Amino acid sequence: MAVAAAGVRETCEAAKRASRELAIASTEAKDAALSTAAEAIEARAAEILAANAEDVEEARSGGLDSALLDRLTLDDERITAIAAGVREIVALPDPVGEEVEARTLPNGLELRKVRVPIGVVAVIYEARPNVTVDAAALTLKSGNAIVLRGSSYAERSNAVLAGLVREAATGLPEGSVSLLSGGREELAELATQDGLVDLVIPRGGEGLKAALKEVATVPVMYAASGNCHVYVHEDADLEMAGRVAFNAKVQRPGVCNAAETLLVNAEVAAQLLPTLLADLNGAGVELVGDERARDAAGGAAVGPATAEDWDTEYLGLKMVVGVVDSLEEAIEHVNRHGSGHSEAIITASDEAADEFTGGVDAAAVYVNASTRFTDGFEYGMGAEIGNSTQKLHARGPIGLRELTTTKYVVRGAGQVKE
Amino acid sequence: MAVAAAGVRETCEAAKRASRELAIASTEAKDAALSTAAEAIEARAAEILAANAEDVEEARSGGLDSALLDRLTLDDERITAIAAGVREIVALPDPVGEEVEARTLPNGLELRKVRVPIGVVAVIYEARPNVTVDAAALTLKSGNAIVLRGSSYAERSNAVLAGLVREAATGLPEGSVSLLSGGREELAELATQDGLVDLVIPRGGEGLKAALKEVATVPVMYAASGNCHVYVHEDADLEMAGRVAFNAKVQRPGVCNAAETLLVNAEVAAQLLPTLLADLNGAGVELVGDERARDAAGGAAVGPATAEDWDTEYLGLKMVVGVVDSLEEAIEHVNRHGSGHSEAIITASDEAADEFTGGVDAAAVYVNASTRFTDGFEYGMGAEIGNSTQKLHARGPIGLRELTTTKYVVRGAGQVKE
Repeated sequence: MAVAAAGVRETCEAAKRASRELAIASTEAKDAALSTAAEAIEARAAEILAANAEDVEEARSGGLDSALLDRLTLDDERITAIAAGVREIVALPDPVGEEVEARTLPNGLELRKVRVPIGVVAVIYEARPNVTVDAAALTLKSGNAIVLRGSSYAERSNAVLAGLVREAATGLPEGSVSLLSGGREELAELATQDGLVDLVIPRGGEGLKAALKEVATVPVMYAASGNCHVYVHEDADLEMAGRVAFNAKVQRPGVCNAAETLLVNAEVAAQLLPTLLADLNGAGVELVGDERARDAAGGAAVGPATAEDWDTEYLGLKMVVGVVDSLEEAIEHVNRHGSGHSEAIITASDEAADEFTGGVDAAAVYVNASTRFTDGFEYGMGAEIGNSTQKLHARGPIGLRELTTTKYVVRGAGQVKE
Repeated sequence: MAVAAAGVRETCEAAKRASRELAIASTEAKDAALSTAAEAIEARAAEILAANAEDVEEARSGGLDSALLDRLTLDDERITAIAAGVREIVALPDPVGEEVEARTLPNGLELRKVRVPIGVVAVIYEARPNVTVDAAALTLKSGNAIVLRGSSYAERSNAVLAGLVREAATGLPEGSVSLLSGGREELAELATQDGLVDLVIPRGGEGLKAALKEVATVPVMYAASGNCHVYVHEDADLEMAGRVAFNAKVQRPGVCNAAETLLVNAEVAAQLLPTLLADLNGAGVELVGDERARDAAGGAAVGPATAEDWDTEYLGLKMVVGVVDSLEEAIEHVNRHGSGHSEAIITASDEAADEFTGGVDAAAVYVNASTRFTDGFEYGMGAEIGNSTQKLHARGPIGLRELTTTKYVVRGAGQVKE
């Protein structure tokens, strides 16, 4: 691959040059490139699948575990989904040029604050070839050049997919899409390209996050883990509480907006827990809890929780259950142990809802709904590149707008400062 | 001072606890605290001046240079200005609770994206006691707890001022305002309080920025340097061009939005430069330039520019002058050498204006106006804590809104994910 052969610095320099032109590329040019890419992905499915089969074969003999192998593996259905995802991004409005504010200043200056691309965005991700295309489509649509840095496990799949997107993007500047390979050293090199790389988005686990924190000097937007809670207040509709808690845990336990902890007000613990915990057991959920939760569990199997359980993102069929005496205690628990992702309260009272949504420090706070809704598609933002749990720039789903910055454009008639 | 005696970690822990309550404090409570602080600053001017006189005396014998001594020194007029600045912040609208977006999702969920405080903001600054009050007022009004870390040169002044604000803030939680002292080690400790400090804002030179880049693990918002340009296009009104360039350089040369470089299109260089450069000379501006600029300078004194000149923020009465052959060359020069702060074009053509504002990558781009307008007050945002030249979160003046983040508050009636 010519792409992979270029050094990190050269690749980033080419991306920076491309980004200057991409910033002023028309929506039509960007959409045309993405539409062509979607067609090419479907038309050349056989080629993609062949490359992917080699990756999967090698990863399997290399001992990659079955969950990761599943994420790495493509099939016709997944390829169709990838192409459909690109078409959805084509259909979204272009955020570039959007006017955020406009006003005439007392001295007559016409001030406009407009959305502009960030510049060069580097995306670092695991062995999920679909991310190659998703990330490229989102960054190109928002007018950014992209430097992709995938996993070596997916090297062949990524090369074909990135190559396809690049070929489709002939109407966009050379250097708009590049793919890097290499190890930890190249990762560190990429994360220190000050002045060339404007943003790094890691899509991976806590290990990748820690590695980047150590070395990065360019801005990084962490799409981080979710240790999410469902708190059932004393006045909750208990049928609803059970339904929501069950959904938040069981519907798709491997994702960041799934709940890991159930907190129940002491006044309703004995009434709610026996049925709900038995249902969770029935769905294969391993439960641990504090003493009061275990006492109120009825016939359900609930082991003793350790101190670490409250801080653990299980990403699987396990849940920790605690009993609290008050709303305040619940809020304090969530703020101490949560990762600032998605938190829910079940309550019949507007007052309790306001106190919870005001007091809990998280990207998304739900009243009488499952934490599972934190998602760019659900929120009506279209596709997303991840969920930010940090507070600066983007908090929650990272969609097209979150891949832009702003610029003040100020027009005058010769005004000077007095 | 009891404040200074507490360790960095303990101070940040207290600030974090305070920030939880401050986040839901009423506008009235915050404004009352700030109004009381403004009164106390005026009422206790003698005490402030006495402490400041000791700081100034010690700094003078310590050999602090006269420009820095001037920034350190308070007098009655400056104290009145500090109090007036606080009252202006009281008069600004509270950004907390502002609704950024609101919509009903197809599944009936009511989604609101609202502004909330960031949490704990640490401000690191040089020997300018007025910053103690400005920064505290801005962060408190936006619902954040503040950890101030001033210069040892201003220790006594800062202690009195921070003490005043803290006493005035009795209606706000304990720990809302703290002042740290100490050296580089404490700075590093402050910049690595992950989970406690949500944001560090350094207000200082490139040295402080580099020191923080080295050690910081918490998010940092750099209010950085300005290497600003004025470009005079071939079709410019040359009287306007001269007036704007002169203003951008001379009106207040020591600030970040002053111009450092003048670029002139070759077609108008011989016509514009002799008068303009002589005027600049006359105002005490030392000029250097490229060969063509020197050739076109007429009788003005213009020395030869070195390669470094194009990348230097003089922050004083010096300017580098270059001649370019095209708008494209001007844009490329600005993007290569500029620091992304404020850039101006003088032109009579909408097309050239659009090309410049589209192509230049900076926080603020001006058409036919001085770069000196980039400022929170000028932009109608009220006070600011600095000017961001980075692209994430805030770009341009950092005002009250830029000291907030957002939270999605989602209300339902038991919705679960299908």
